[in-house]
Amino acid sequence: MSKPILTTLSPEEIEKVKTASLALLERTGVNIDHAYAREVLQRAGAKVDGARVFFPPKLVMEAIAKAPRQFTIYARNPNCNITIGQEEPVFAPGYGAPYVTLASGERRKATFVDFVNIAKLSGSSSNMGVSGGVLVEPSDIPEKNRHNAMLYACIVNSDKPFMGSATGEEHAKDSLKMAGMIMDSDQGIPKQPVMISLINTITPLMLDERMVGALIAYAEAGQPVIIASLGMAGATAPTTLAGTLALQNAEVLAGITLAQTIREGTPVVYGSASSITEMRNGSLSIGAPEGAWIIAAAVQIAHSYGLPCRAGGCVTDSKTLDPQAAYESMMNLQVAGMAGVDFVLHAAGILESYMSFSMEKFIIDDEICSMVRRFLRGTKFEAEDLAVQLVNEVGPGGQFLTADHTYQNFRKEFWTPALSNRETYDQWKMNGLVSMLTQAEQRVHEIIENYEIPYLEKSVEQKLKEMAGI
Amino acid sequence: MSKPILTTLSPEEIEKVKTASLALLERTGVNIDHAYAREVLQRAGAKVDGARVFFPPKLVMEAIAKAPRQFTIYARNPNCNITIGQEEPVFAPGYGAPYVTLASGERRKATFVDFVNIAKLSGSSSNMGVSGGVLVEPSDIPEKNRHNAMLYACIVNSDKPFMGSATGEEHAKDSLKMAGMIMDSDQGIPKQPVMISLINTITPLMLDERMVGALIAYAEAGQPVIIASLGMAGATAPTTLAGTLALQNAEVLAGITLAQTIREGTPVVYGSASSITEMRNGSLSIGAPEGAWIIAAAVQIAHSYGLPCRAGGCVTDSKTLDPQAAYESMMNLQVAGMAGVDFVLHAAGILESYMSFSMEKFIIDDEICSMVRRFLRGTKFEAEDLAVQLVNEVGPGGQFLTADHTYQNFRKEFWTPALSNRETYDQWKMNGLVSMLTQAEQRVHEIIENYEIPYLEKSVEQKLKEMAGI
Repeated sequence: MSKPILTTLSPEEIEKVKTASLALLERTGVNIDHAYAREVLQRAGAKVDGARVFFPPKLVMEAIAKAPRQFTIYARNPNCNITIGQEEPVFAPGYGAPYVTLASGERRKATFVDFVNIAKLSGSSSNMGVSGGVLVEPSDIPEKNRHNAMLYACIVNSDKPFMGSATGEEHAKDSLKMAGMIMDSDQGIPKQPVMISLINTITPLMLDERMVGALIAYAEAGQPVIIASLGMAGATAPTTLAGTLALQNAEVLAGITLAQTIREGTPVVYGSASSITEMRNGSLSIGAPEGAWIIAAAVQIAHSYGLPCRAGGCVTDSKTLDPQAAYESMMNLQVAGMAGVDFVLHAAGILESYMSFSMEKFIIDDEICSMVRRFLRGTKFEAEDLAVQLVNEVGPGGQFLTADHTYQNFRKEFWTPALSNRETYDQWKMNGLVSMLTQAEQRVHEIIENYEIPYLEKSVEQKLKEMAGI
Repeated sequence: MSKPILTTLSPEEIEKVKTASLALLERTGVNIDHAYAREVLQRAGAKVDGARVFFPPKLVMEAIAKAPRQFTIYARNPNCNITIGQEEPVFAPGYGAPYVTLASGERRKATFVDFVNIAKLSGSSSNMGVSGGVLVEPSDIPEKNRHNAMLYACIVNSDKPFMGSATGEEHAKDSLKMAGMIMDSDQGIPKQPVMISLINTITPLMLDERMVGALIAYAEAGQPVIIASLGMAGATAPTTLAGTLALQNAEVLAGITLAQTIREGTPVVYGSASSITEMRNGSLSIGAPEGAWIIAAAVQIAHSYGLPCRAGGCVTDSKTLDPQAAYESMMNLQVAGMAGVDFVLHAAGILESYMSFSMEKFIIDDEICSMVRRFLRGTKFEAEDLAVQLVNEVGPGGQFLTADHTYQNFRKEFWTPALSNRETYDQWKMNGLVSMLTQAEQRVHEIIENYEIPYLEKSVEQKLKEMAGI
C-alpha cells in the first residue's frame, strides 16, 4: 500500500532554497535577543556582532544532522503516546486565538470556560493527537498565571500529550514542573519527551528573548520544540514565494541550530507557517493558495534535511462558517496531508486568520481531518482486492450489493461520515432540512455535556491546581 | 518551474490494475448492445458471443497506442481553442443535473431559461475552457429536440468549444451538423475537432446502444470523445477500491478500443467518475474521500497508457451551499489538479450527487477553480526570486512592503480573490457583514444581466435556431 505523495519542488529547486538560506545565515545573520544563546552559539563557531549572530554553513549542517527524524511523546495514558515523523500526521487543535466566534455568529473575547470546553472537544476527538496548548487566550485569567491555568486545563481534561508554554524561560520551567507532577520524572523534570512547545521566530531574521528563553529551557530538559517561521510575503518577507521559502528556512535552521547546540539530539520540528499578505489591507492571508503551496514546499525542504515538519491546518481567513471557511480549510489540510506533513497545528477550530476560534468549526474541521486521513490510508492491491474472479462471477449487468465480498469489505474500506450529509434530497427534507451548522452546534453541546474527564489522582490534581492559581 | 505532482499508486500497483483489467476484458468480456460495433470489433480480432465481446490483450494495447496523448479542440473564436493533455487542466461546467437549486434554497426542475443563464455564467468564466453540454436538463423542452436546443444555447451564448449530444447516433449526427454550420467543414462535417462528447459505460461491463451509436458517429467524424465509467463501489462495482479501479479501467479501455477500431487516432479522453456507495441508503456518494482517491489513481493509470484523463470536479453530496458543499468540492478539484488531470467535467455548479445545479455554487466553484490553478502554477526560482540580496539589504527586523521588489512582483505572484473575503473582522462588520451566498447571488445577476453574447452571423444563428426547434 503506497502513500499518496505530493511534490511541488524539483531537487534542484530544493537545493537553490537551501543554498540561499545558508547564504542568509552566514552573511546577513539573525538578531538573537538573548545573551546566553549568543554565547553558546559563539562557542560553537558562530560569529557574533552585538545582537547579530552569523552562522557558518558547517555549524548549521552539523547541528541539524543531530536532530532525530522521528520521536515519541509520552502521554499519561500510554495509549495516547504519539510519534512525530512516522507515516501518519499528528493533529493538534487551533492555537492562540484571542476571540471565540459563537454559533450565533457573535464574536467576543475568549474566556477560561471556553478554553475548558475546547479542551473537551479536543480530548474527545479521535483525530487530535495532542490536547492542545493555547487553545484560546483566556482573557479572564490574569497574565501572570494564565500559562499555568491553560496547562492545567489541558492536562486535567485530557490524557493526551499537551503543549508547553513558550512565553519565556520562567513559564517554560513552570510547564516542565507541572508535567513532572504527572509523568515519570527526575527531580521534578520529566525523563522522557511528554509535551511539545511552539517557538516562533520574528520575521525577518529575529529571535526574541522570551521565545529563546523557552527554547533553551525545553532543549535543556530534552523536551521537543517546534521552531516555526511565519513570513508574510510582501510585508515581512519577499513577495516571491521562493524568497519567502528561503527566508523562512534560514530562520527555522537558526532555531534548530541553537536547540542542537544547547543539547544534541533535542527533538525538533521544522515549522512552516508563512503565507502572503493581502495587499489591499496589509493583513495576513492564511487561506491563500500561495500559502497552501508554501506548505507543500516546506514539507519537502524539511524532509530533505531529515527533519519532521509542521505545516498546514484547517485555517481560513473567513469570519464565519461559510463555504470559504470550508474550502480554505480543506485546501490547507489536504495539501499538508498529501505532502506528508508530520505535525499539524491548527488542525481544527481556527477562523479569521488565527484571530478567532469556533467550536462549531472544530466539529467541521474534525470531519475534514477524518476525510484527509481516509485519503492518506489508500487501499490494498492483493488479488482479492482486485477482485477479478468476483467481477467475472457477477458479469456484465450484474450487481455487487449482495456479494459476500461487499459484506466482508465495506466497513473497513469505506469511511463513515460523522457530519457530511449523504441523504437524498427527499430524505433530507423529510428529516427537517437540518443545516450543518445546527448539527455542529448540537454536537458541541453533546460532547461538552457528556464528556468524561479522565481519571487523575486527586492529590496530583490539587498540586496542579495550585500551580494554575485558579 | 516544476509542476505539483500527486502520486498515490506505485508502478507495481498500476501494473496490477492494468493486468486485472486485461484479464476482465479477455475472460469476462463486455456486453455491447450494438451489432455494428460488435462486427467491427470481431473483424479486428475480438471474440463475439451474442451481445458479449471478449477483447484479446493485443487488440486493446494496440488500439490505445493509436490514441493521441494530446489534441486541440477548435473554437469559433480561435482565442478560445483548447488543448487537452498539455500542462493545464481544461475545466467544463456541471453536466446533466435535472434540478436547479435557487439561492433561496428552493429546488425545482430545470428549464431552458436556466440553461441559457448557466451558459452565460460559463461563457463569462475565465476558468471554463468549454461552454458546456447538458448544463442542466431543460424539462420544458420536448425530448425530441432537447439535444439540439441545448447545443444551440451553448453555441450562441459562447464562442468557446462545446459538448455534443451523446444520446444516440441520430442526436450525435445532429450535433455534427450544427457544428458544421459554424466551423470550417466538408459536406457539413467539421474538418477539425470542434467539440467533445461524453460517452458513459454502464457498470459493470456494458455499453448501451445509444452511447455506442454516438461514439461511432463521433469517431467516424474524428471528433473527440470522453469514455467514462462511473462504478459505485459496493453496488455496481467491487467494494474494494482496487477492484473498482480495475473494473473502471476495463470499461474505459473497451470504449477506447472501439473508438480506435472505428477510426485510428480518434481523440479520446480516459474518463474516471467512479466513487463509493453510501451503504445506509444505497446512493452514490461523490463527496467521499474514497472517490477523491480514485480520481488521483485514475489519472496515474490513464497517463501510464499515454492517454489524457478526465476526472474530478467541484462535486458534492450536499443539498445546499454549506461547508460540506465547499470542502467536498475543494477536495475533489484539488486532488484532480494535483494529480495532473487533463479535463475536468463538473468543475462548477454541481450539488446533491449530480442531481442539482446551483448558479450561486457555480460562482463559488469558479473561485475554487482559480485557487487550484494558482496552486498549480507554482513559482520561479531565479536569483531575483530567491532574493538573497534583497533580504540582506532589508536585514533583521526590516520590512518588504516598500521595497521595489514587492511592487514589481506582487501582482504576478499573488492571486486576487474574486469572492473570498480577506477583510479584518472590523472591516467586514463595517461593510455590513455580507455573506458569501449574498455575494454569489449578486454576482449571478450581474453576469447574466450584463452578459455580451458573442457575435454570430444572423443567417447562421437562424439556421441553428431552426435545428433547435425553439
